Amino acid sequence: MRVIRTVSEMQVARHSLAEPVGLVPTMGYLHDGHISLVKQSKKDNVSTVVVSIFVNPTQFGPHEDFEKYPRDEECDLAMLEKARVDVAFLPVPHEMYPSGFNTWIEIKGITEKLEGAARPGHFEGVATVCNKLFNIIQPDKAYFGQKDAQQVMVIQKMVFNLNMNLEIVVVPTLREGDGLAMSSRNYYLNPDERKAATVLYRALLKAKEVRQEGEHNAEIIRKSMSAIIQSEPLAKIDYVSIADTVSLHELEQIDSKALVSLAVRIGKTRLIDNIVLS
Amino acid sequence: MRVIRTVSEMQVARHSLAEPVGLVPTMGYLHDGHISLVKQSKKDNVSTVVVSIFVNPTQFGPHEDFEKYPRDEECDLAMLEKARVDVAFLPVPHEMYPSGFNTWIEIKGITEKLEGAARPGHFEGVATVCNKLFNIIQPDKAYFGQKDAQQVMVIQKMVFNLNMNLEIVVVPTLREGDGLAMSSRNYYLNPDERKAATVLYRALLKAKEVRQEGEHNAEIIRKSMSAIIQSEPLAKIDYVSIADTVSLHELEQIDSKALVSLAVRIGKTRLIDNIVLS
Repeated sequence: MRVIRTVSEMQVARHSLAEPVGLVPTMGYLHDGHISLVKQSKKDNVSTVVVSIFVNPTQFGPHEDFEKYPRDEECDLAMLEKARVDVAFLPVPHEMYPSGFNTWIEIKGITEKLEGAARPGHFEGVATVCNKLFNIIQPDKAYFGQKDAQQVMVIQKMVFNLNMNLEIVVVPTLREGDGLAMSSRNYYLNPDERKAATVLYRALLKAKEVRQEGEHNAEIIRKSMSAIIQSEPLAKIDYVSIADTVSLHELEQIDSKALVSLAVRIGKTRLIDNIVLS
Repeated sequence: MRVIRTVSEMQVARHSLAEPVGLVPTMGYLHDGHISLVKQSKKDNVSTVVVSIFVNPTQFGPHEDFEKYPRDEECDLAMLEKARVDVAFLPVPHEMYPSGFNTWIEIKGITEKLEGAARPGHFEGVATVCNKLFNIIQPDKAYFGQKDAQQVMVIQKMVFNLNMNLEIVVVPTLREGDGLAMSSRNYYLNPDERKAATVLYRALLKAKEVRQEGEHNAEIIRKSMSAIIQSEPLAKIDYVSIADTVSLHELEQIDSKALVSLAVRIGKTRLIDNIVLS
């Protein structure tokens, strides 16, 4: 596996990569969820798999966890090696954001809801860094996890609106045995919090169950989810949403597909998860 | 010459274009200034020259001249044919901005000055449409005229900041015999206005002359330019600027290079021009 740390070396290397190229953009501290994205790219028969590891400062708010976001480069590289990744791209921040950087990708509409409302500027940072990674690495396909459902929608919107020349592949959320969605932020949790964190998936399953029993009223389903989260003393609701899968407008009535998503604080750790009801 | 009117046809055609590809983005109503960009691309030995013609609605303000901007497709295509252009790309607005479009390239800093201050949102529209054209056509080089000096800076900033994979080539301003910079908007001028319009270049030459006489004080030079423009009854100053060539901050003192630029209304027509003092 080749390890590349500068934009210019990556740009030169790109010319000699076997095509098609698959890209898995990550912030590192890798877990099986990330590896499932690599595995999907292998299934898709891309000839070169590139994984980027970059804790992107511009997608963190001023009071968020950029500084303490977990990092373990040695372990990450070992996991990528084992997963038969071809290129690991690990730029430092000033490689991606040199002095005087001031160009941003702004996607309106869907970025104003949910995570975008809770984390102002987050998706501008996400879209900008992905735009740059796509331009530097020029992948044929890029892989994202369904766990960050709104992020997927934002990236798809950017690619479509800006006519970027790649396909976005969405990979199902990987879960622990007890249903907790895999996330690097799970490592913040102490044992009690870790147990409490299953409340997110339990709330999502409750929504599915209530819907399957024939309930169409979205507010009733939201309330049944909230009740479950409120029954967990360590959990604090940030939002519980049942939204249109295209506009992300909150639904009153579930008639066809709906994105059921939530953000919950477990102690100091903010976790998100989602399922799609169809 | 192949004429292409849809994004999807352009994307398919791109695969079979001989490389390197040169792009000349225009808003049509072509004049010799545009043709000088085509000629430069020929000199650079690009194998395929693509000219896009698209009056981009998103770079016009609500009270600007989008509707009445001059258009003459038949004449444009004849000029391109004569200049041995390989591909003319003429999308309609809904091809470039389909329903639900809401992704924008925002460049901060330099877009807040001069044309950006006078025309809010202008450069967001320019950067976004160029970003799309670059992604659709994937040129190795794209050609812009020095006449729109700030536009060139904005595009160069976008390409550098977003790691876009092309070179921006800047071509000197082409002028009429009396010095008026070529521009599609010159066609708005009646004969009296056309004569008055030479005041822009005369003011620029005055700046050059005063500087060459040893004057370093930028405000004195600005005043000498303003005096010339004010002596022309049909002319009304929008701005007269002597600015740093990187930041576009107004200079007090000219020590090295400076961008001397101005925007002047001649009757209802707003014209711009510039020179670089070194």
